[in-house]
Amino acid sequence: MKRKLETCFSPALYEPEGHSNSIVVIIDILRASSAICTAFANGAASIIPVADIEEARDYKSKGYLVAAERDGFVLDFADFGNSPFNFTKEKVSGKTIVYSTTNGTGIINLTSTAYKSIIGSFLNIGALTKWLASQERDVLLFCAGWKNRFNIEDTLCAGAMADILMRTNRYTTICDSTYASMDLWSLAAPDLHGYIEKAAQRTRLRDKNLDDCIAFCLTPDFTDKIPVMKNGELIADI
Amino acid sequence: MKRKLETCFSPALYEPEGHSNSIVVIIDILRASSAICTAFANGAASIIPVADIEEARDYKSKGYLVAAERDGFVLDFADFGNSPFNFTKEKVSGKTIVYSTTNGTGIINLTSTAYKSIIGSFLNIGALTKWLASQERDVLLFCAGWKNRFNIEDTLCAGAMADILMRTNRYTTICDSTYASMDLWSLAAPDLHGYIEKAAQRTRLRDKNLDDCIAFCLTPDFTDKIPVMKNGELIADI
Repeated sequence: MKRKLETCFSPALYEPEGHSNSIVVIIDILRASSAICTAFANGAASIIPVADIEEARDYKSKGYLVAAERDGFVLDFADFGNSPFNFTKEKVSGKTIVYSTTNGTGIINLTSTAYKSIIGSFLNIGALTKWLASQERDVLLFCAGWKNRFNIEDTLCAGAMADILMRTNRYTTICDSTYASMDLWSLAAPDLHGYIEKAAQRTRLRDKNLDDCIAFCLTPDFTDKIPVMKNGELIADI
Repeated sequence: MKRKLETCFSPALYEPEGHSNSIVVIIDILRASSAICTAFANGAASIIPVADIEEARDYKSKGYLVAAERDGFVLDFADFGNSPFNFTKEKVSGKTIVYSTTNGTGIINLTSTAYKSIIGSFLNIGALTKWLASQERDVLLFCAGWKNRFNIEDTLCAGAMADILMRTNRYTTICDSTYASMDLWSLAAPDLHGYIEKAAQRTRLRDKNLDDCIAFCLTPDFTDKIPVMKNGELIADI
């Protein structure tokens, strides 16, 4: 029997009861899910996502490496911010990193009743879709969006993943969001960088001089690591 | 100064505080907003939207004409169901109709703090966009969706409206949902009937033999009436 493929465009639209047996792929490409994939590509041992600034500060005082930003600005007690470029081999190899994220921790908590929550981006799209297709599970592509709103960049990444998964002929979908994301991907794919210029988050990052990582975040298959949530932390051992 | 154009894909994503000075266009083309436009095209005096079946029954006992369905089935006490084909001149001309809708009444209540709530569909797209462009107001295109989910058919209608409005050069947008809807419309427009085959609601209506009205609901400019919410009822006097 074919597995179901669905897509969710915002945390405000997530229906946990429908996904207790599904693998949920969390997609927040500018920049959380790309940063997390980069950290594991560079040998991080684990990542502890925290929602609260005070919690992050607390971890720092215990000696953890802490990545923490709010609205694009690095917090004063943190080791570095949330750009993927900060998670270099020199800094993260073998380490546990505490990662404070505006949006991501809420989503990780929301999806805690799913069969598995994994982290997806263009950076690990090939390995991730190959692994998904090898599993006998329904899949939900969960776009983080921005402040609960639909966003273009996560939708395009979900569309690219859906396109690969549907071509395996192992999935079925009646989900309008999945069709829409695949169609937007088909429009954007020939010139992804040009297309992403439209995205509001692109403009927000540029306004803060944080847009240097965008081209990198759109790079397919930089890593074959698939971060997965286990016992309150992310590890790359799927 | 240019006016802002935004699009909302689901009642679960609506942020009322941002729209107290906006005109909100409620789009639920299969079938509520198409049925309402048809009723006014055929001379209805007003439409009272009600959420509750008991409230609809109550109106019926007072002698009102009542259109009421749940999940596509006409309720036993009602005069007819929610297909646009029921709202014929013979039945509705000069009448006040009580319209019971699963989704629509909730949305009308949600948008009660907006400057104006009006009803949009392909059936009145030309008149509606022309009127909008003549107003010095921000616009929100509000897709009703289905059970709080994103849907393709309302998104395409919003995209078609956004396309017309943006061409007037009187609007600006940084809204990812607006860009996405316009791009999906650009893909769908050459073969709208074929494209809409993808929509899950299309399948749901077909399964209940309620899909006979779909081609009609995709007809542009059947009427120049613009239903507007005033004092708890819809009238066509914008």
